[in-house]
Amino acid sequence: MNGAEAVVATLRACGVELYFANPGTSETHLVAALDRDPAARAVPCLFEGVATGAADGYGRMAGRPAATLLHLGPGLGNGLANLHNARRAATPLVNLVGDHATSHKPLDAPLESDIDAAAGTVSGWVRRCAGPATAGRDASAAAAAATAPPGRVATLILPADVSWSPGAGPAPPLPSPPPAPVPDGTVAAVAAALRGAEPAAILLGGPATRGPALRAAARVAAATGARLLCETFPARLERGAGLPAVERLGYLPEGARAQLGGLRRLILVGARSPVSFFAYPETPGLLVPDDCRVHPLAGPGDNAAAALTHLADLLPRTTPATAATAAATAARARPEPPAGELTGETVAAAVGALLPEGAIVVDEANTSGLWLPPATAGAPPHDWLTLTGGAIGQGLPLAAGAAIACPDRPVLCLEADGSAMYTLQALWTMAREGLDVTVVVLANRSYSVLEMEFERLVPDRDPADHGRARRDLLDLSRPALDFVRLAEGMGVPASCATTAEDFTAGLAEALAEPGPHLIEARVPPLFGPVRAP
Amino acid sequence: MNGAEAVVATLRACGVELYFANPGTSETHLVAALDRDPAARAVPCLFEGVATGAADGYGRMAGRPAATLLHLGPGLGNGLANLHNARRAATPLVNLVGDHATSHKPLDAPLESDIDAAAGTVSGWVRRCAGPATAGRDASAAAAAATAPPGRVATLILPADVSWSPGAGPAPPLPSPPPAPVPDGTVAAVAAALRGAEPAAILLGGPATRGPALRAAARVAAATGARLLCETFPARLERGAGLPAVERLGYLPEGARAQLGGLRRLILVGARSPVSFFAYPETPGLLVPDDCRVHPLAGPGDNAAAALTHLADLLPRTTPATAATAAATAARARPEPPAGELTGETVAAAVGALLPEGAIVVDEANTSGLWLPPATAGAPPHDWLTLTGGAIGQGLPLAAGAAIACPDRPVLCLEADGSAMYTLQALWTMAREGLDVTVVVLANRSYSVLEMEFERLVPDRDPADHGRARRDLLDLSRPALDFVRLAEGMGVPASCATTAEDFTAGLAEALAEPGPHLIEARVPPLFGPVRAP
Repeated sequence: MNGAEAVVATLRACGVELYFANPGTSETHLVAALDRDPAARAVPCLFEGVATGAADGYGRMAGRPAATLLHLGPGLGNGLANLHNARRAATPLVNLVGDHATSHKPLDAPLESDIDAAAGTVSGWVRRCAGPATAGRDASAAAAAATAPPGRVATLILPADVSWSPGAGPAPPLPSPPPAPVPDGTVAAVAAALRGAEPAAILLGGPATRGPALRAAARVAAATGARLLCETFPARLERGAGLPAVERLGYLPEGARAQLGGLRRLILVGARSPVSFFAYPETPGLLVPDDCRVHPLAGPGDNAAAALTHLADLLPRTTPATAATAAATAARARPEPPAGELTGETVAAAVGALLPEGAIVVDEANTSGLWLPPATAGAPPHDWLTLTGGAIGQGLPLAAGAAIACPDRPVLCLEADGSAMYTLQALWTMAREGLDVTVVVLANRSYSVLEMEFERLVPDRDPADHGRARRDLLDLSRPALDFVRLAEGMGVPASCATTAEDFTAGLAEALAEPGPHLIEARVPPLFGPVRAP
Repeated sequence: MNGAEAVVATLRACGVELYFANPGTSETHLVAALDRDPAARAVPCLFEGVATGAADGYGRMAGRPAATLLHLGPGLGNGLANLHNARRAATPLVNLVGDHATSHKPLDAPLESDIDAAAGTVSGWVRRCAGPATAGRDASAAAAAATAPPGRVATLILPADVSWSPGAGPAPPLPSPPPAPVPDGTVAAVAAALRGAEPAAILLGGPATRGPALRAAARVAAATGARLLCETFPARLERGAGLPAVERLGYLPEGARAQLGGLRRLILVGARSPVSFFAYPETPGLLVPDDCRVHPLAGPGDNAAAALTHLADLLPRTTPATAATAAATAARARPEPPAGELTGETVAAAVGALLPEGAIVVDEANTSGLWLPPATAGAPPHDWLTLTGGAIGQGLPLAAGAAIACPDRPVLCLEADGSAMYTLQALWTMAREGLDVTVVVLANRSYSVLEMEFERLVPDRDPADHGRARRDLLDLSRPALDFVRLAEGMGVPASCATTAEDFTAGLAEALAEPGPHLIEARVPPLFGPVRAP
């Protein structure tokens, strides 16, 4: 057995059978090893950022890692942005990077580069496989590192000679540690803090935005009147009618500060103490008010569900139950199907009106998505996946990976036009694999968020400024991108909507039909100069 | 003056006025600074790999650096592959990467990552700007580092607070050192080696594949009978009728070894001793025969033109001049316009028949481009730009940058379909800027080079292998990519050719009209299983 075969066999034993791949010559023996494994599934990606983003989407939804297959330093580079997002999502992910043969590296051939250094910027674990004898163990260690709570990007660098050399064998899976228990004393201290009846909130993040942790958090909120907040960009938020209503922290620091204003206690569960997304001149980056005490209950790798359940058990049962419990649960409610102008707001209403039960929503709608959370709060239960690391170009790959993880669930990808253009190649993977993804491109023909930030950061402009650079760099209308042709060019059926009625009808149709569809929704930009349509 | 303004003003003083940009919030003040500079030109790119590849193309043709404008670690990551190619091309390039404000970095906000580590993998020079007081000097040092012979990627990391803080001022350009002189003794030793009349070749690389160095090398070849070789992937090779005929070293080691076989002297001029592109089992990576002595004449940063001129002056004038000189010069010759099936060979014949004088050819045609060099050897003089670092996805951005550097020259981009899909967004930049680029996508619907390497690396397959992974990962035909729609979706007029006649007519038309055009040339793959069309 050669090293590549040992890696594939070991990963299979560890539950990793899916490869989002963009291989090159140095990964040839890994492809051959996949050819020999009847359980392995290789999903082709036309660009590495698609492979890494899809592995992120898969890991978030499947709860176990997919593998990537990347070609040397440049392939890793192309996948780096979405690995960054996966790192911020704490997604379990086995990142396989092929390298030159060991003897070839000192020759500094054209594709030689420092893979280890680049991998270190996005990985929680990096190992270079030293020889076929350890290939199986290295793969097993990579899978274990990827899945150890809370999950991480584990990069295994595989030199080509390790892949092709005999003398390897599979290794057994390593035991996977459970999430760390939270000490009783920590829980008791938080219970005491909450009994004080000061204004309090619980900030949920990581694994606490879903499942039993989320429901236990709702019990705590109901018992104490504490508000339920979550991170600005949760990896996967369970929400919808009948589920705990969780308020996402705002993106702009002034918004987040308003949400946190008046709080005296902030309980952190799987989340870190919140900071501003970007810095602004003379604005503090820490968002928690000075007179608010922060109580870390559970870190991202801790057993948040058990800690919150224990905490809820320590608190008195809600009396009267009704008021507080009702406040913590989203009521079933859908907006009316919208009519008239197509805008971010009417797009959101149509999504709220039509979102199917069990949908996976991938939200990279940016400024055009401002109205989505309220419009969908009372829709049937669904998962909401967001841009955890701020590296745009995540949405389409993430949707592809989520659809592969959950073939029986509809995926709705709400994607800003500027962001879509980073990893548009994901559409081809959706077509190739026949994935049930409805892609809505919110085409405002602008980097509208940058228009907003420009006004905030450069409020006093010199009238002598020619303004050409801003116009040239933030405006996507010259020429307009035609997403219908772009989608059709990659084998995805597509249509364009310019009114709310058209969009609602198109969305209903796309959601009803299996396989991928794209709708270009022409919406006006929220910020920036008004342009002729 | 704030730090951003100081950087822009300093770079302008250093001759850097062009920015290939994909900015984000942390680069807002740089955009505002460009708005204030009447000389600055900002070229928008929808993806950072377009920005870095275009800056490479600009630098190769203009001989002076363009700047990029990238957004934090993920933006740098997206640009890393083409920076890798630029590094291998020794292209002068000022790589500007915005970062969080200094005070914000310890907060580990979502977009925080180790920019310095990633930048180190592709840069010959990296500096993090410490404050507005040094911003001008840092920019001046970056420009000087980028342009010092032979040229390099100089990365300047600009924290947002440095950009927005006052107290900065422009710095004067630093003196640019000339290429280092080669010691007389080195030249004399090479002259003595060549006088021995043993079989010899001169391997040209870097700056020696063009201009006076190339012509002086031809004089040496004519005087001694030494063959003129060049690197497999030259950054910029001047060639065509009347210019020195240079044989490119083959991509596969067996081909290169055959070219080097029998040589007893190899003179290196701007090139390193050749090594195999990839390693293969039990195949040495060093390509020079054991009994061939290698003589480094000039390194990439040395004055190759002066050294070769000096060398030629030391050698006897050619007697008889005619035979040897004729052998070293390409004769004017064009293939007939082709007819019949459209293949890599007939595409090459059409290109050879029609290539305009002064054209810039960007060659990322990979296996489909096998016939291009012979078919164009006798075409009117032109420049040939290649994939220096092996990171595919370079061609389209490189063509955009070359077209901006040389607005009066036609650019022909010969692009493999698989490679095109990495940075297809470059088409939009071509449309936005109205660049005179003719893009030919050689659509063989396959990663054909990987099919070839698979046969070489895994010759003995087990009949039990299901072969699904190879089929799924190397075949681009399910669904077929429609490059006409993809181009039109980004505002570039496009057509598709399926016969040699159609292609020749379409190419003539596209070359005659200004502005960008794309032709999808449907060619059969050179390697891999035969598929239904």
